[in-house]
Amino acid sequence: MRSVTKDNITEVFTSYLGENTDPRVREVLSAMARHLHDFAREVNLTHEEWRTGIAFLTRAGEITTPERQEFVLLSDVLGLSSLVDMLHSTPEATSSSVLGPFHVSNPPPLAFGGDMKRQYEGKVVLVEGTVRGTDGNPIPGAQIDIWQTAPNGMYSSQDPDQDIHSFHGLMTANDKGRYAFTTVRPVEYTVPSDGPVGDILNAAGRHPWRPSHLHYIVTADGYRSLVTEVFPEDDPYLDQDTVFGVRDDLVMKYVEQPADSFPDGYELSGTVKGTYLRVDFDLVLAPSI
Amino acid sequence: MRSVTKDNITEVFTSYLGENTDPRVREVLSAMARHLHDFAREVNLTHEEWRTGIAFLTRAGEITTPERQEFVLLSDVLGLSSLVDMLHSTPEATSSSVLGPFHVSNPPPLAFGGDMKRQYEGKVVLVEGTVRGTDGNPIPGAQIDIWQTAPNGMYSSQDPDQDIHSFHGLMTANDKGRYAFTTVRPVEYTVPSDGPVGDILNAAGRHPWRPSHLHYIVTADGYRSLVTEVFPEDDPYLDQDTVFGVRDDLVMKYVEQPADSFPDGYELSGTVKGTYLRVDFDLVLAPSI
Repeated sequence: MRSVTKDNITEVFTSYLGENTDPRVREVLSAMARHLHDFAREVNLTHEEWRTGIAFLTRAGEITTPERQEFVLLSDVLGLSSLVDMLHSTPEATSSSVLGPFHVSNPPPLAFGGDMKRQYEGKVVLVEGTVRGTDGNPIPGAQIDIWQTAPNGMYSSQDPDQDIHSFHGLMTANDKGRYAFTTVRPVEYTVPSDGPVGDILNAAGRHPWRPSHLHYIVTADGYRSLVTEVFPEDDPYLDQDTVFGVRDDLVMKYVEQPADSFPDGYELSGTVKGTYLRVDFDLVLAPSI
Repeated sequence: MRSVTKDNITEVFTSYLGENTDPRVREVLSAMARHLHDFAREVNLTHEEWRTGIAFLTRAGEITTPERQEFVLLSDVLGLSSLVDMLHSTPEATSSSVLGPFHVSNPPPLAFGGDMKRQYEGKVVLVEGTVRGTDGNPIPGAQIDIWQTAPNGMYSSQDPDQDIHSFHGLMTANDKGRYAFTTVRPVEYTVPSDGPVGDILNAAGRHPWRPSHLHYIVTADGYRSLVTEVFPEDDPYLDQDTVFGVRDDLVMKYVEQPADSFPDGYELSGTVKGTYLRVDFDLVLAPSI
């Protein structure tokens, strides 16, 4: 089309798509162009703002490495990552939430009731629950990949003072579908804010904090895999997670217990001082489609 | 807000913006997030498609260098660059169009009627016109920066066989506001299609071609600078410029003339064989705001 105008450019874009283009590609590209054009028209985007955007993407490309993914971080702080998770969650199952960049491959095996705390200091926590289907039946043998920050707010992959496998463990649910482990309370932390995404947060008047959480990936034959995180109800950032990861059903409670009630049969490096915290959180999987 | 859902995430995003955030930053970020979220909801964006998008941006970052700007190219083929141009064009002035990546700084001076053809073979063209204001008055002394492809379809910065200044010239409009130069007919060419943006074009069933064109940057005291391009009416890609640069008022005509009508007073390397082409194109500037 010769007469491209600010009003017809979206139709012109669509008219350029090939006749034999995959229907889904056509749908996604057409919608992307329409929203991009509507955005620019709506805010009357200036050349200077356009240049700022190009410079932002260029800097994001420059800072991105196999260890640091600024484009994923951008998607996270804009809420896109969480939205995609929510679009594909099954209502009756545990909500999914952002994977984040700190998962490590080949986590060390962790026995039922095993110790993820190791030598670290911090408030002792006993986490347990049942892996079950949306039909309510437990799922013996489900695989539960668990990870969290150390008490210093860092994941093992960020912290040269930690073994790469610290605060990571792979557990198999027992014959009743139960999982249980001991650890220390994870802490809130900031997303990387020294790059271009940090500049967006600054310009937006936003903080870079995430509430503390435990990460899970749960897999079992015949069920959809679940990538999620659970958050304590008393976390100061629960209502303002900078990556929008909190869902109603992912909020759990630390119940304080006296040391002498610590049950037998659970491994723990060191001893409970005064009190420990107990968490009961069930992980509910949807059947495979 | 604790209960982030797929339906309220845009409001949650806006609620996170700081109270003292610059109003324009607030407006642009809110609109960006809303369109991004609406897009994802509308197409029900999948995790796999999201990963494809992240991988695309990562590859675009990797291929981008000071010489190659894949993010600008992405903006170009999505129509965003042209849309921003059109949003800020003055209706009575010559339309602006994409600058492109091939402009060089410090172009060589080109006298009125001067020769930009040099030793190159190709159809001889004589380009001329008046630089004037929207009030119709000529603008003597306007500066006109002109550039184009060589007959092989390459700009000097792409082609090690060309002098960096070939097919570039900086002219001053004469005391009647006239400009004129001799050259050869530029040819259509493709945008770089060996990177991730090329993969989008392929998936979309789109070609990477641009119609042939002459580039201009026109500046004069008291007037808004004009960045534009003009296209011949008989170009095969006029109706499908892959970067959406063609506007109605930027279409010109090559008028074929017998060699013996070639006027005196114009420089030309070599001689006209048979016929030459004559272009008359006025460049109209809006007053500064």
